[in-house]
Amino acid sequence: MRTQVAIIGGGPSGLLLSQLLHRKGIDTVVLERKTKDYVLGRIRAGILETGFVDLMRKAGVSDRMDKECFVHDGTVISFGDTEFGINFKELTGRNVVVYGQTEVTRDLYEAREAMDGKIVFNTENVHIHDVDRDAPYVSYTVDGIEHRIECDYVAGCDGFHGVSRQTIPLTVRKEYEKLYPFGWLGILSETPPVHDELIYAGSERGFALCSMRNSNLSRYYIQCSLSDAPEDWTDAAFWEELKRRIPGKYAEQLVTGPSIEKSIAPLRSFVTEPMRWGRLFLCGDAAHIVPPTGAKGLNTAASDIHYLYNALQQVYEEGDSEGIDRYSERALARIWKAERFSWSTTNLLHSFPEQSAFDLKMQKADVHFLRDNREAQSVFAQNYVGLPY
Amino acid sequence: MRTQVAIIGGGPSGLLLSQLLHRKGIDTVVLERKTKDYVLGRIRAGILETGFVDLMRKAGVSDRMDKECFVHDGTVISFGDTEFGINFKELTGRNVVVYGQTEVTRDLYEAREAMDGKIVFNTENVHIHDVDRDAPYVSYTVDGIEHRIECDYVAGCDGFHGVSRQTIPLTVRKEYEKLYPFGWLGILSETPPVHDELIYAGSERGFALCSMRNSNLSRYYIQCSLSDAPEDWTDAAFWEELKRRIPGKYAEQLVTGPSIEKSIAPLRSFVTEPMRWGRLFLCGDAAHIVPPTGAKGLNTAASDIHYLYNALQQVYEEGDSEGIDRYSERALARIWKAERFSWSTTNLLHSFPEQSAFDLKMQKADVHFLRDNREAQSVFAQNYVGLPY
Repeated sequence: MRTQVAIIGGGPSGLLLSQLLHRKGIDTVVLERKTKDYVLGRIRAGILETGFVDLMRKAGVSDRMDKECFVHDGTVISFGDTEFGINFKELTGRNVVVYGQTEVTRDLYEAREAMDGKIVFNTENVHIHDVDRDAPYVSYTVDGIEHRIECDYVAGCDGFHGVSRQTIPLTVRKEYEKLYPFGWLGILSETPPVHDELIYAGSERGFALCSMRNSNLSRYYIQCSLSDAPEDWTDAAFWEELKRRIPGKYAEQLVTGPSIEKSIAPLRSFVTEPMRWGRLFLCGDAAHIVPPTGAKGLNTAASDIHYLYNALQQVYEEGDSEGIDRYSERALARIWKAERFSWSTTNLLHSFPEQSAFDLKMQKADVHFLRDNREAQSVFAQNYVGLPY
Repeated sequence: MRTQVAIIGGGPSGLLLSQLLHRKGIDTVVLERKTKDYVLGRIRAGILETGFVDLMRKAGVSDRMDKECFVHDGTVISFGDTEFGINFKELTGRNVVVYGQTEVTRDLYEAREAMDGKIVFNTENVHIHDVDRDAPYVSYTVDGIEHRIECDYVAGCDGFHGVSRQTIPLTVRKEYEKLYPFGWLGILSETPPVHDELIYAGSERGFALCSMRNSNLSRYYIQCSLSDAPEDWTDAAFWEELKRRIPGKYAEQLVTGPSIEKSIAPLRSFVTEPMRWGRLFLCGDAAHIVPPTGAKGLNTAASDIHYLYNALQQVYEEGDSEGIDRYSERALARIWKAERFSWSTTNLLHSFPEQSAFDLKMQKADVHFLRDNREAQSVFAQNYVGLPY
């Protein structure tokens, strides 16, 4: 088989790139390790920057999103007794939308299928070959049968544990990582969200986040120990701890119910440099991870797709490799800013085991400064709605 | 002897308070542990916020300062190859002035002496009594002879190592502290400053600061190890290391010369709460210490003096104790903001021994964000020129 761009990974990044390129007449094949149902069963991020929304529109897959999404013009931040809002719309003229990653992925699959997009599921033993030469190819097996795709370029959209990043030799690759000494215990419940905006709640007991998917589907998180397991937390214990960490007026209004999903995710910051090696381009989680505070995970993937889509369009339509040559530099410049925001927002609101009484005072002073200073709020808002591409 | 306000400590804080109160007809006695020459020999801060300048004017001691000070409308910040200016004037409408603490103290002594202000030098065995009751007094000895001052109130302006803070029982007092794993090696040299603004220079080799006292008196600092001694550093070694840490164009222009003073200071953040206990009020270094990055030391003392002066005026002129009752709360609210700025600016520009490659990337991302974002610059500038009292 031969294609122009082989895309490793059938999550939202790979599908979005495939769909965007398709509309420019550039042929792609997407290889996905799992089944479609598995991919659609993953519960992930739900906050989209306008940059992401614009890409979905450009890809022609925004109809359902535009109808069903919830526009958020601001967010609530609290720390103990301190509570305040940050109004993105007023501070930046922009907003974010709530639309689950699962829904994004579903819409992208539907669009790809409607256009007979080539997506191969259940791929095993994926190997990327010769991306440092002129004629790369990808080999893989499905049901034990070997296949091979010859291509011009390979887009590595296969996540943190994927093969793409590992393909870049360690002599070329430099990795930066921070592991946080806690995780997030998250539940999904069929209850109305406690508030119509997200609540980012710091407290001396640890962080909590009140998020949502729709008017009867809530997503709540609490900071937990890395040694905790989901089964250590009954629903009752979760709700009780959540109530202790959020402002009293929300705790009183909180509607609780049985969890329909409960899981723990560790928090990690990670970046690999460079994001391009020859004809291989890394996108999204394959190249970088942010802790979820500030909702940048899926949005950083979108910014990579934006740069890579433009670069590939430039080379195919104009024969100009400038975009490709500068892909890594451009993508990383924005990624490091998002890494910084995610890291600093994590630091702002979480409880750290080694935190001294002075450190806690500084953390509270940071929160109070953000509460009281319009320019500090503007800085937060600009980062939250997404810095310009 | 009897006075209205006994002031412990004859540094700038105590003298300024004494002078301000004198002009309102409130009687004070200042007790100083050292001689006047010793106090005037201390080389300290040199950057004054407008709030400090306004207090000096209110105290009627600003004539020489207004003539001789240098107005700084901005500062230079660098980190490795990155260099940019922050224009305070443009961002906040305000500025800072360069006028050495030694000069401030000299002007205050002249003013106090011209008004026959009571200043007792060489006091030993100072003890503060009964500030938790109605009739406090201060006992001390000079040349072995015991003295006693009865008073209404005691102002503790005697610095970090003074007796005032120690007078507050440990059951009442809560202290917050952070020790930084480095010091500042500073030199004074009779050379023209390398630039007409200060240069705050971060680098992977450590921090450096190019400061000044006047057009032929420069003050330079480099971050050093806490185990270094001033005699470990020859002048030549100092200049060489300084040049490596500041942007090339300044390194080339730097005029070097023999140091006329060379010393090492450790960096510390410290706050004690509360700042009032009965009839005792702590001011300046007696209550709090900031690391020198951002030049907040003397300026935080001035903000305490502002609140205490107003509180004492209110109680003596109007019989209203509201200002006294809320002194600690008001002073601390502003102090914690200055602590936050000094701590975050120290973190922004110093090299930390335990810093990972990721941490260094975050530090550089912080610097780059400050370089590129006007609102972030505004936040920095507002803090640098001094938050409102």
